[in-house]
Amino acid sequence: MPHLLFEKHKALLAQTLVAIKKRGYWSPFAENVEAYGENALEEGRLAFEAYRDAQFYLDQPGVIERGGAENSPYGLPLNISYPKCHPDALISAGRSAMSAWIKAGPDTRAGICVEMLERLNSHSAELAHAVMHTTGQGLGMAFRTAGAQSQNRGLEAIACAYREMKQVPETAVWEKNQGNDPPMRLEKIFTVVPRGIALVIGCSTFPTWNAYPGIFASLVTGNPVIVKPHPSVILPLALTVAVARQTLKEAGFDPNLVSLLVDDMEVPLAREVALRPEIRCIDFTGGPVFGAWLEENARQAMVFTEKAGVNCVIVDSTDDYPGLLKNLAFSLALYSGQMCTAPQAIFVAKEGVKTAEGVIPLAQFEADLARALNTLLSETECALEILGAIQSLATMARIEASRELGEVLVESTALRHPQYPEARVQTPLLIKVDVGDMPAYAEERFGPISFIVETTTTLESLSVAERVMRDSGALTFLVHSTAGPIWQLAEEISLRVGVALTFNLTDTVYINQTSGFSDYHGTGANPAANACLIDSAFVAGRFFVVQSRHPL
Amino acid sequence: MPHLLFEKHKALLAQTLVAIKKRGYWSPFAENVEAYGENALEEGRLAFEAYRDAQFYLDQPGVIERGGAENSPYGLPLNISYPKCHPDALISAGRSAMSAWIKAGPDTRAGICVEMLERLNSHSAELAHAVMHTTGQGLGMAFRTAGAQSQNRGLEAIACAYREMKQVPETAVWEKNQGNDPPMRLEKIFTVVPRGIALVIGCSTFPTWNAYPGIFASLVTGNPVIVKPHPSVILPLALTVAVARQTLKEAGFDPNLVSLLVDDMEVPLAREVALRPEIRCIDFTGGPVFGAWLEENARQAMVFTEKAGVNCVIVDSTDDYPGLLKNLAFSLALYSGQMCTAPQAIFVAKEGVKTAEGVIPLAQFEADLARALNTLLSETECALEILGAIQSLATMARIEASRELGEVLVESTALRHPQYPEARVQTPLLIKVDVGDMPAYAEERFGPISFIVETTTTLESLSVAERVMRDSGALTFLVHSTAGPIWQLAEEISLRVGVALTFNLTDTVYINQTSGFSDYHGTGANPAANACLIDSAFVAGRFFVVQSRHPL
Repeated sequence: MPHLLFEKHKALLAQTLVAIKKRGYWSPFAENVEAYGENALEEGRLAFEAYRDAQFYLDQPGVIERGGAENSPYGLPLNISYPKCHPDALISAGRSAMSAWIKAGPDTRAGICVEMLERLNSHSAELAHAVMHTTGQGLGMAFRTAGAQSQNRGLEAIACAYREMKQVPETAVWEKNQGNDPPMRLEKIFTVVPRGIALVIGCSTFPTWNAYPGIFASLVTGNPVIVKPHPSVILPLALTVAVARQTLKEAGFDPNLVSLLVDDMEVPLAREVALRPEIRCIDFTGGPVFGAWLEENARQAMVFTEKAGVNCVIVDSTDDYPGLLKNLAFSLALYSGQMCTAPQAIFVAKEGVKTAEGVIPLAQFEADLARALNTLLSETECALEILGAIQSLATMARIEASRELGEVLVESTALRHPQYPEARVQTPLLIKVDVGDMPAYAEERFGPISFIVETTTTLESLSVAERVMRDSGALTFLVHSTAGPIWQLAEEISLRVGVALTFNLTDTVYINQTSGFSDYHGTGANPAANACLIDSAFVAGRFFVVQSRHPL
Repeated sequence: MPHLLFEKHKALLAQTLVAIKKRGYWSPFAENVEAYGENALEEGRLAFEAYRDAQFYLDQPGVIERGGAENSPYGLPLNISYPKCHPDALISAGRSAMSAWIKAGPDTRAGICVEMLERLNSHSAELAHAVMHTTGQGLGMAFRTAGAQSQNRGLEAIACAYREMKQVPETAVWEKNQGNDPPMRLEKIFTVVPRGIALVIGCSTFPTWNAYPGIFASLVTGNPVIVKPHPSVILPLALTVAVARQTLKEAGFDPNLVSLLVDDMEVPLAREVALRPEIRCIDFTGGPVFGAWLEENARQAMVFTEKAGVNCVIVDSTDDYPGLLKNLAFSLALYSGQMCTAPQAIFVAKEGVKTAEGVIPLAQFEADLARALNTLLSETECALEILGAIQSLATMARIEASRELGEVLVESTALRHPQYPEARVQTPLLIKVDVGDMPAYAEERFGPISFIVETTTTLESLSVAERVMRDSGALTFLVHSTAGPIWQLAEEISLRVGVALTFNLTDTVYINQTSGFSDYHGTGANPAANACLIDSAFVAGRFFVVQSRHPL
């Protein structure tokens, strides 16, 4: 008999299967805060405040001590203590929980996973405050990314994995005719068996959005999941794990199928745990050095990484020059460039930008883009919401150091936050370099740091951008051009490098955005990521098919 | 406009998609020789004879010299010379061919790949002789495995990969309402892009059956394929490559999308080529040492291996004792145990085998199994067809060396082949060991070498078999028991180890057999193979999805 939670969510699951096939716009979880009730944000704030200066409750095994040292990029001390559990205890509890979870089958597991997301959805405002005060995102952005957009990505992962699992029939009868002899008949039973224990290593900027695909893809395919948040961004994933555990418990399953592994900067645990033989699947979002280390060393596991790249923009020509400037300025400013999709290297030929009104010389384009940034950020309240705060001190230092890399076109200045005077708010730094200064612009500079790269021709822009994206990786590639031949060259580069290409954004869609159920985020084909959120390769390797045969 | 070959084969493709979902018996390519015309085998023999003492024609680039030193295990010198091409030339020709093949899209590629199989089907009898005189398979078996069964596996791979590719829509329109503002609209184009160049490393026993899944899965997803046959078994894959190239050419594509890389025992090329950065996908069937080396070292590629394991049999109880003996004897004798699915370790408790007629003491079971083998092989013509010949001298030596491993219950003796007096024909060696002699039976002994392992109880049989399969790997696990609790334990072991389980084969279905479109061959979950023929993980990683977006 199907589990009640499968019955409850099977219609949504069916809709999701249609959505990931059609890939238009869809958001079953409401993105607008109004849908959550008049006082949602304030109630979320109160719920968030209740976690501060308190002990976060998680009934996990193997507690050694309590720890956690999160500080808000807005200057708020959080002082939340979490249970720190021994990895052995979490691994062994996960293994014990696995057998019943395998037997439950894909339908039941999917039903329970969707239920987790629905419950997380009702915590969206609380998650928004948690994400804001750990990552530095502005509240409005945090509400969307930590809420509906993360839940959408989780649901997409469930549906993708469910689709793959359901391609395997539960049973079959194999019957081969034998001429005059009676036919040979076998009954076959096919079981989806998980790879093992999954480890999800969270990042410091989009802790839920980047972790949910791995968490839900692994869990729905039967793998127990250990979630290791970034030590400076624990709360959003702690809330997630707490909801998941409660859902499992109420559905009659062992909550240790999902557990939280808290570590700290001083004694990081990810390396050690990632090499444990029981860990068969690792999802990682974060810096390229540790990502590459995982790919190289965690040989016993399938490793899915989203690292970083140098996202390139080509500015060749446009039929909406003001729109181009406004759109690009917004992309540079949004969450202070702390998005893996934010542009870093903007290639412009020295001959300038062709527009309907004539050619804009390069120097004027630079001045215009600087002005567009200033205009965008002229009104403080709005600027604070767009920029958010700088998550880490390392990014603050990187801004400082990057000034030396070229001619500063737009200086990065600190903005004072009226409510949080200690918030680390910085306007974007825009630097001009020559195409020859490759060491400056062809290495990822995470944060509000971008470059105008002067080239001789758009052709050179394209060819250098291809080399940069091929060698350093890229998640996005934005091309402004009205010329068909340029489009064609860009498309060929996009296929060769394996990077998502977007043309001529001049309105309110931004290159930074990637939309659940529709956009493939990353391709796996270039160094920025060895996996794609979410294609079938992202889910198919998380399970095996084991058959048993009985003669009939 | 769809390619003519897609139009021609789309109905078959649709049927295949149904078959891999239902997983009953299906064989669109006829398995019985009668379907190929009265003189098929003789015509095949003549075609095969024409290759002997001749130059095999392949219009490949980069020919350095001609080579090839195949000898039939039946003692026939083949003396076929093949072009030996420089890997650089094949890689670079493959890369040049790739762009048009990507643009052709999944439908066209699938149509052309199915056409290749249809053409190969018409060469089935010729392939049968080629496989017989390189691998040592009996002619009847070679006809089925090199013909329909290989073609079925190829078609299954095409369909699995096609299904995954078709889950990605070619285009989508993303439209998000904006309240009173006009909606945001983007057109999205999704392109399936291959991983790179694929290398398929063939084996010496089932050169086509084991290679076709990798060849066709890679090719249909857009990857050029370099086929490197085992240096002693070249002809079957040379014929395959020739047919594939001709099909490509006639369909208007570059034949260098599929090429043959011939090497020899003295200067093997696989290691060097496998590490080339252009090679992004490797399919390997063969020994565990080289398989593990590939997994460990070819880090730039996805590596799919089928290595070897110790397939276990538990004999606990039966309601058809004569059937059990006959079936098991056949499984041990078929193609002289040179099948990756053949049983090696037969665990029997010293208390004996429970039957409807009472308990058969262990000593009697041993004698009965020996007698069943003798009876099966008593008639020479029939024995020769079942046993085939021993493919390699290494296996001959292994039989010799294995006599020392325990008490010889059934001696391996040479049989004289009336037609081929120098054929290496050997009857199976059956050795008795104690459960404590793990070094003897828990290591793969490829060839007609198997063990009766005496245990104290069936419970011990099960627990030791689990350990052996977990540590050494296994592709098949056969359990003879009439007891429900034993079934349940065996099923749990099967799920834990990730091994295909079969119960109580006493008729004419044998543990060695694995049926296209129905059986999953290997799971990827134990050391015998890191991949499964054919689940979605086998195909999904062979391509990336790259998107481009235009505002509308």
